[in-house]
Amino acid sequence: MADPWESTMDHAVAIARKAGEVVRDALRGDRMVTTKSSAVDLVTQTDQKVEQLIIQSVKEKFPTHRFIGEESVAAGESCILSDSPTWIIDPIDGTTNFVHTHLTVTSTLDLQVEFGVVYSCIEDKMFTARRGRGAFCNGEPLQVSQQKAVEQAIVATEFGSDRDPEVVDKIFQSLRNVLCLPVHGVRGAGSAAMNMCLVASGCVEAYYEIGVHVWDVAAASLIVSEAGGVLMDVEGGEVDLMSRRIIAANSKTVAERLVKTIVAFSPPRDDAAPSDRCEDSTHLSARKV
Amino acid sequence: MADPWESTMDHAVAIARKAGEVVRDALRGDRMVTTKSSAVDLVTQTDQKVEQLIIQSVKEKFPTHRFIGEESVAAGESCILSDSPTWIIDPIDGTTNFVHTHLTVTSTLDLQVEFGVVYSCIEDKMFTARRGRGAFCNGEPLQVSQQKAVEQAIVATEFGSDRDPEVVDKIFQSLRNVLCLPVHGVRGAGSAAMNMCLVASGCVEAYYEIGVHVWDVAAASLIVSEAGGVLMDVEGGEVDLMSRRIIAANSKTVAERLVKTIVAFSPPRDDAAPSDRCEDSTHLSARKV
Repeated sequence: MADPWESTMDHAVAIARKAGEVVRDALRGDRMVTTKSSAVDLVTQTDQKVEQLIIQSVKEKFPTHRFIGEESVAAGESCILSDSPTWIIDPIDGTTNFVHTHLTVTSTLDLQVEFGVVYSCIEDKMFTARRGRGAFCNGEPLQVSQQKAVEQAIVATEFGSDRDPEVVDKIFQSLRNVLCLPVHGVRGAGSAAMNMCLVASGCVEAYYEIGVHVWDVAAASLIVSEAGGVLMDVEGGEVDLMSRRIIAANSKTVAERLVKTIVAFSPPRDDAAPSDRCEDSTHLSARKV
Repeated sequence: MADPWESTMDHAVAIARKAGEVVRDALRGDRMVTTKSSAVDLVTQTDQKVEQLIIQSVKEKFPTHRFIGEESVAAGESCILSDSPTWIIDPIDGTTNFVHTHLTVTSTLDLQVEFGVVYSCIEDKMFTARRGRGAFCNGEPLQVSQQKAVEQAIVATEFGSDRDPEVVDKIFQSLRNVLCLPVHGVRGAGSAAMNMCLVASGCVEAYYEIGVHVWDVAAASLIVSEAGGVLMDVEGGEVDLMSRRIIAANSKTVAERLVKTIVAFSPPRDDAAPSDRCEDSTHLSARKV
């Protein structure tokens, strides 16, 4: 049977590599002459350029495909899936020196992810996954850790950008509960995708966060599940990539321990009407580099 | 004038590379056949082997030099400086896939660090610094970030291994204060040396922690200061590498903001009599991988 996704994924990998080159060149040029603060500005400028580069390139090759991109949503476009293949894009994620580009393709309205590509351009690590066909880093197969004893687990999470005291309270309460399970350690690599690729690689046992966006996690969610990991909502049950809540773990055992430990709350959904998430969109721009 | 430290430092770099090879081979072999949990055991076994390898190699070349090593101290040896050059060694630091070897040489009783070597063996990154001669990663000069606005800063810290509720309270209080300064973000890469090399590289603006050991921070402290950064005690004033408290920042401005923000406490010193730190030495073995 013909494989409808093979050429699409090949194209995604090629674009991610191209996007990585643009980012790397921009940072390299910048590093020669200026300071970190302007590097951050430069990442922000490069962000829009890279999203446009990706969208143009895909439109030329696959005219019917649709897009959900961080930049487009920040500019007020809606975040709604159609029945055409939809590319979910995070052109630049992470801080200077830890920059990733993510490309995800979903095939249907129910957000079934067909493939995911996360390219860590500074380290030149290309993480890829095809549904049902495994997850890889630079062609080497990935596998989650087999450690199911939560006391031996390393758990990754992030604080996000919301400084509303009620939200911070809940984030700290969860973190404290997790730390005192106890776990072996807590990490925060600085981005959802990076943390999820650490789960897929077996470097950490789990990652959880409330407040992420669909473009932060879509590609990496398939990389985790194809590496043998488990995705779960923070209150248990199936993950909903639009809900802004996620647990990615090496096993159901570890994920379910986290469900019992995390203090859950519900930020405005990514597919809510724009007016419902306007407050949140100010966080977006503060957060994206 | 002859440079008394040049050959010593060359030897340190060569040993670090050799130690890295041993660790990398051990992990690579392990990764083929088993699980993460046994990789952790394997790192622990390799730890002692690598510390012995380093000590033997230095003793042959520099018979009068002394040692402070994590393994030796965990085994009950004292942590006291003499007036001979003293090597402060952390043979294996970090979790699987993020393993570093540190070698520091101090010349005198007052812990003046002459050079520091931190080798990230999986990524093959050799961080080096000589007092008064700059800091480098694989030969490229390092420079701290120029960002002095704490609101734009990324701050790294770790939770350590102490789960005493009073200690955890203070760590969380500090972290919350820092997060709500607000800062741009908080990270935790998993080890003091790694976080400090991020400060030296300009990737994060600052790192602080209470509970670290002298072998966690000695080498990286020189790498930070030679990259233009600042070291400070968490209550202000000069850092004391035996005190188990440290701020490493890109600037005095950022360090002093952290001093005002951190809830300070004093764990048993590294150079305390062994009986004073026996409770703590149980944490050591839990922490070192």
